[in-house]
Amino acid sequence: MRATGARAGQALGRVLIVLASAVALVTLRVPAAHAADFEGYCRANPQALPIIGRSEPGSPHIPALAEDLDLRSDVGEYMVFRDGAHVATPDDIGDLWRDDLVAFVLGCSFSFEAMLQAHGVRLRHLDEGNVSAMYVTDIDTVPVGPFAGKLVVSMRALTPADAITATIVSDRYPQYHGRPVSIGLPSAIGIADLAASYGGHGLTRLAADEIPVFWACGATGQIAAREARLPLCITHNKAHMVITDLPVVPRS
Amino acid sequence: MRATGARAGQALGRVLIVLASAVALVTLRVPAAHAADFEGYCRANPQALPIIGRSEPGSPHIPALAEDLDLRSDVGEYMVFRDGAHVATPDDIGDLWRDDLVAFVLGCSFSFEAMLQAHGVRLRHLDEGNVSAMYVTDIDTVPVGPFAGKLVVSMRALTPADAITATIVSDRYPQYHGRPVSIGLPSAIGIADLAASYGGHGLTRLAADEIPVFWACGATGQIAAREARLPLCITHNKAHMVITDLPVVPRS
Repeated sequence: MRATGARAGQALGRVLIVLASAVALVTLRVPAAHAADFEGYCRANPQALPIIGRSEPGSPHIPALAEDLDLRSDVGEYMVFRDGAHVATPDDIGDLWRDDLVAFVLGCSFSFEAMLQAHGVRLRHLDEGNVSAMYVTDIDTVPVGPFAGKLVVSMRALTPADAITATIVSDRYPQYHGRPVSIGLPSAIGIADLAASYGGHGLTRLAADEIPVFWACGATGQIAAREARLPLCITHNKAHMVITDLPVVPRS
Repeated sequence: MRATGARAGQALGRVLIVLASAVALVTLRVPAAHAADFEGYCRANPQALPIIGRSEPGSPHIPALAEDLDLRSDVGEYMVFRDGAHVATPDDIGDLWRDDLVAFVLGCSFSFEAMLQAHGVRLRHLDEGNVSAMYVTDIDTVPVGPFAGKLVVSMRALTPADAITATIVSDRYPQYHGRPVSIGLPSAIGIADLAASYGGHGLTRLAADEIPVFWACGATGQIAAREARLPLCITHNKAHMVITDLPVVPRS
């Protein structure tokens, strides 16, 4: 199996790939303890943070995902946080890599977007060269250790018929966030204004025949890791993913 | 197996029952041809008209559904149409029964409401002693013979989270209308005003935290049969169902 780093939008035409957001979680003094807490946080909030793979301490490789995966460069673009503050956005973290880093690879909703399209769902944000917008909801995640915070969701603007198809199809892929967490009423999850997306990017305007559908998003873990104010934490930058050639398989 | 007639709302606490709407379709001169056309119409529009059973010509019984089922009285209340005009609402049609009648029993969304409740979905219309409202949409059914017309839907007012659960659970029961046909936007299926329900009954007001979810409804067949202006046509009256003790089983 091979892995490549790419901006997610570039690879969406390929069907048999896994696009997974990568969270390289680092602590300087108690790495094992924080890694265990982060894994616990993911497992306590699996809809947002489905673990696809985890590296051994100090290893930038996860052979089970891809033989040649190198998490120091294959993500394409990274965000580096020190004590919770964003300090850099490099495209390679080879010079930051340390023997006490533990990397997590999480399932991403980009992976099921190709499945949705195969079922006839129109994803207008892709047609328009955009990505799905993200929002911070008022839903609390289950805290574990220093990790806590609100659930982040991604939104897709769909026709009602497509929203029904997308709800049923995505439910078959729990490793990529599964079924939606909300639909139709942004206010029900604390979103006051669709135009005010997290990070200010993504498709945020509905057409007259569309409703918003919200899925749990791996950015939940990025915020929790940042707000835990770890001495060092490296995450993927938005829309930059680990891409392997693992097949996307529905649950049996 | 036994069958009873009851107003549907009275029996909803029982889980292992089938509630099926009955359409007793009658023609005086060409019964076989019209029955074949009606069956074809049902099979061409299976989300609205899932056939659970059909009687032999002249027989008011369908032993496969229930040994003691008698469609002349077990529906509880009937509507009688002559040349498309509603002429009577009897609770027994023994005196109208004829040797050329063919009866159809169709799956009804009442059957999956108990399933939805078992999955934690709140059905406010039931809590309030109401039934789901019905609407005539602007969606054309697939015509067969003299049978044609718009799709009728039933509406349930659900929280977004319950709407997601209900969409996924109902999809497992294609014999009871299956997945919703629309969600969130009444205008998308030609419903201008939720307050103006078909027949003027049922829960039609949304709470601030609810969205409307629409399922195909067996009343589609009632309208098509009426508008075909058959010399004689007998249907169930609204919310009066054939109830058997057949289990409600999801598709495998």
